Amino acid sequence: MTKTVDLNCDMGEAFGAYTIGDDAAMLEIISTANVACGFHAGDPVVMRDTILAAKAQGVSIGAHPSFMDLYGFGRRRVMGDKPEDLEAQIIYQIAAIDGMARALGWPISHMKTHGALGNMAAEDPVLAEVCVRAVVAVNPKLVVVALPYSEIMKAAEKAGLEVVCEVYADRTYTADGMLTPRSQEGAVIKDHAQSVDQALAMVRDGYIPTTAGTKLPVEAGSICVHGDTPGAVATAKDLREAFIKEGIAIAPFARN
Amino acid sequence: MTKTVDLNCDMGEAFGAYTIGDDAAMLEIISTANVACGFHAGDPVVMRDTILAAKAQGVSIGAHPSFMDLYGFGRRRVMGDKPEDLEAQIIYQIAAIDGMARALGWPISHMKTHGALGNMAAEDPVLAEVCVRAVVAVNPKLVVVALPYSEIMKAAEKAGLEVVCEVYADRTYTADGMLTPRSQEGAVIKDHAQSVDQALAMVRDGYIPTTAGTKLPVEAGSICVHGDTPGAVATAKDLREAFIKEGIAIAPFARN
Amino acid sequence: MTKTVDLNCDMGEAFGAYTIGDDAAMLEIISTANVACGFHAGDPVVMRDTILAAKAQGVSIGAHPSFMDLYGFGRRRVMGDKPEDLEAQIIYQIAAIDGMARALGWPISHMKTHGALGNMAAEDPVLAEVCVRAVVAVNPKLVVVALPYSEIMKAAEKAGLEVVCEVYADRTYTADGMLTPRSQEGAVIKDHAQSVDQALAMVRDGYIPTTAGTKLPVEAGSICVHGDTPGAVATAKDLREAFIKEGIAIAPFARN
Amino acid sequence: MTKTVDLNCDMGEAFGAYTIGDDAAMLEIISTANVACGFHAGDPVVMRDTILAAKAQGVSIGAHPSFMDLYGFGRRRVMGDKPEDLEAQIIYQIAAIDGMARALGWPISHMKTHGALGNMAAEDPVLAEVCVRAVVAVNPKLVVVALPYSEIMKAAEKAGLEVVCEVYADRTYTADGMLTPRSQEGAVIKDHAQSVDQALAMVRDGYIPTTAGTKLPVEAGSICVHGDTPGAVATAKDLREAFIKEGIAIAPFARN
Repeated sequence: MTKTVDLNCDMGEAFGAYTIGDDAAMLEIISTANVACGFHAGDPVVMRDTILAAKAQGVSIGAHPSFMDLYGFGRRRVMGDKPEDLEAQIIYQIAAIDGMARALGWPISHMKTHGALGNMAAEDPVLAEVCVRAVVAVNPKLVVVALPYSEIMKAAEKAGLEVVCEVYADRTYTADGMLTPRSQEGAVIKDHAQSVDQALAMVRDGYIPTTAGTKLPVEAGSICVHGDTPGAVATAKDLREAFIKEGIAIAPFARN
Repeated sequence: MTKTVDLNCDMGEAFGAYTIGDDAAMLEIISTANVACGFHAGDPVVMRDTILAAKAQGVSIGAHPSFMDLYGFGRRRVMGDKPEDLEAQIIYQIAAIDGMARALGWPISHMKTHGALGNMAAEDPVLAEVCVRAVVAVNPKLVVVALPYSEIMKAAEKAGLEVVCEVYADRTYTADGMLTPRSQEGAVIKDHAQSVDQALAMVRDGYIPTTAGTKLPVEAGSICVHGDTPGAVATAKDLREAFIKEGIAIAPFARN
Repeated sequence: MTKTVDLNCDMGEAFGAYTIGDDAAMLEIISTANVACGFHAGDPVVMRDTILAAKAQGVSIGAHPSFMDLYGFGRRRVMGDKPEDLEAQIIYQIAAIDGMARALGWPISHMKTHGALGNMAAEDPVLAEVCVRAVVAVNPKLVVVALPYSEIMKAAEKAGLEVVCEVYADRTYTADGMLTPRSQEGAVIKDHAQSVDQALAMVRDGYIPTTAGTKLPVEAGSICVHGDTPGAVATAKDLREAFIKEGIAIAPFARN
Repeated sequence: MTKTVDLNCDMGEAFGAYTIGDDAAMLEIISTANVACGFHAGDPVVMRDTILAAKAQGVSIGAHPSFMDLYGFGRRRVMGDKPEDLEAQIIYQIAAIDGMARALGWPISHMKTHGALGNMAAEDPVLAEVCVRAVVAVNPKLVVVALPYSEIMKAAEKAGLEVVCEVYADRTYTADGMLTPRSQEGAVIKDHAQSVDQALAMVRDGYIPTTAGTKLPVEAGSICVHGDTPGAVATAKDLREAFIKEGIAIAPFARN
């Protein structure tokens, strides 16, 4: 049996007359798309087009819920909502895309939180449980894609959901398996070859190299590639080819 | 077997810190609630609370999709979207509430269009088909609630969907079964007793009295009561009691 | 010369079909209105109507800028905007109401921050300066209304702006002159007579009674009354009458 | 005295994380920028950045108000607002940018309506007057930029405002001086040389060539160039050079 890895990318982040990222090009490279649900980006038309484009390419899709924050693209921490109210917001988003995707004949297979919501759910056990409860409420067959060692990963496992660890090729990791904060020196790996090496270490060899010089075990099911940075498509293509050269096939962790 | 009629009311039209209508009082009177889906009113928290309150009262619920127009409360005609794009918008809304309601153990039973979208879908066969296709796409078991003789009623019947005719106790009807436009004298029946009489004529006797003096046959499955006008709750209560006095029970057209 | 005090109230917080508070009744009692600028509440039509209603009653008005957060009514702390970007947001809001009010012949006289923005600007010197710079940029003749001992009060004084201290009749104060957080026991004074007593102590006698039993000097130029709590109008009326009985006239700190 | 013509372009139409058009490149070519005011596009940060970039290039700026329609980019006709309510919306937008631009030391010089609002104000005398009244209310020194023979041009002249006729190089004109609707064959001039010829005819020779073969007199004060179409920057540059070659200088109709 061939070893496989998934490449996931945030997608469908256009809104009205606005576009962001080159979704069409990226869909030829990745195996899984996290589709915005209309709260930080995306609108019903963009969602439909993204789902149909993913279907045409055989790319697996999932819900990518966020804080209700179009202006901030879901990247701002919005404080003050009760956990159960955030849960309702996430349920709404997952339900909307779950139903639309089934209507279009290409059901979603997973949930991955977006931006500030994702960062907070990685750190905060209460918020992590909120996200997991929302998945259970709408569709407990959905896979939860999350960072290893994160609170949401733990909460999803505890709830009996299927989980997939996602890792970053271009971000360094601290000794406890967290991403080095972007505010710190060396958070982003700019050397392309080093980034590919890290991806292979994580996927092929099963460990995360940390900034402390240690190796943390990881079962990396998916690599997250960025869609809205300059050169994103070329970088993703290189990563894809590096895996294939190593005999690791690119395939979604889930089949629709 | 007792004759029954349904009383439906738009509900869940609060947003954030804003409220509109006395939903709690109305839920004790009506049998069916049309729940806003977040486009003209409503937000995920309001939707959750409305669904749970309806469940607690045994009130049947449905999707109440609209143009994306919070500022105009969905009452403005928004021109220029392609029909297939409007279809995506309606699919999104129905899917969101359909999934949320199932998650909360109180599935939706019907779809009724809101405001300007409803007015346009009553008149325009293209828009009528758009709304019907959206229902078919998400959940073809949903009943379509619409005005008799409207284009959406015809489109729903043609698509093989279950339909329920809704009538108004406090609006007069033209010779062809349309509501007299509000801009015309005598569009609204202000005399309360006359309004109750009209309701009984439509439900008990099976005809719509028209402003031309004729009687149009109608199978009135539901009476629409307004939730956001002064005295709305008292009016709805009177109507309910008038039916019960005539031996007509108030019951939802659909059971969850 | 008669001693005077100002009563200020947040106003114009309706949006589209939604209303909040009884602005018409409150305008007969207060002397200054803080008018929402469309970010947490208010829209251009509401703003126009509020300005004209204030003008008709001779009530002084001011800008009441907020985070861009209609859903959260400006009460949620939104983290992650750069200070200079928040400054642009506040400039936009002050400029919009400043220009509209001049167009309607009833210019604004002050600026008071709303909700979470106000709480943060009271605590955080950087954010306090942001708000003050926005006032200076648009109209340095505007008075800044703020809590005594707050960072924004200090920043406004440092910038040479005219300031007015506002105090609360129904909130207790800590030893350092801050409002007792609502999360703590005894934060809100529910006894009406005690609330009136505190107002008189602050305005007539020039001190804030603190929960530590001490008295902090204050030059209370304005009392903030709430518009959206039950009984708000009656409470404001009582306060007004208590002042008048003491020979203290209700008058705006600024004349348009 | 050298003959001059103005080149104007819609600008500042980014929103949050979204960008549209290459404003930086276009600012080196044009002489006047119509700056979005936050209703169809633009946000306070984008507005500030656009105003400062225009100032740095010596490009004149103006208000570019629209329907409140971010999703539709102001291109959808939104029906149902009362004229006086639309007036409040336009006043708000002009006031916001007018105040912000003065705060940044680069005051606006004109007003040009956007998208569907512009189309409707060109045809409908009531809406035309609404737009003109809004300008008069906020700043009667603003120039109104509008299509020749349009209702808003007539209304602005009647109100005694300064007006500037804008013409299109790449659109054909009907016998009565209106733009051929885009739905009709031949509405857009795709041949680049023909487009330049038309521009020269209108600016140098003072007439609009119509599809009826006639020549309509026009005093073309400004040419509108598009910012968000492919090749927009190159087209604008060609137009600029064609004018300069003819000895016609590119200069704003107004000086800040």
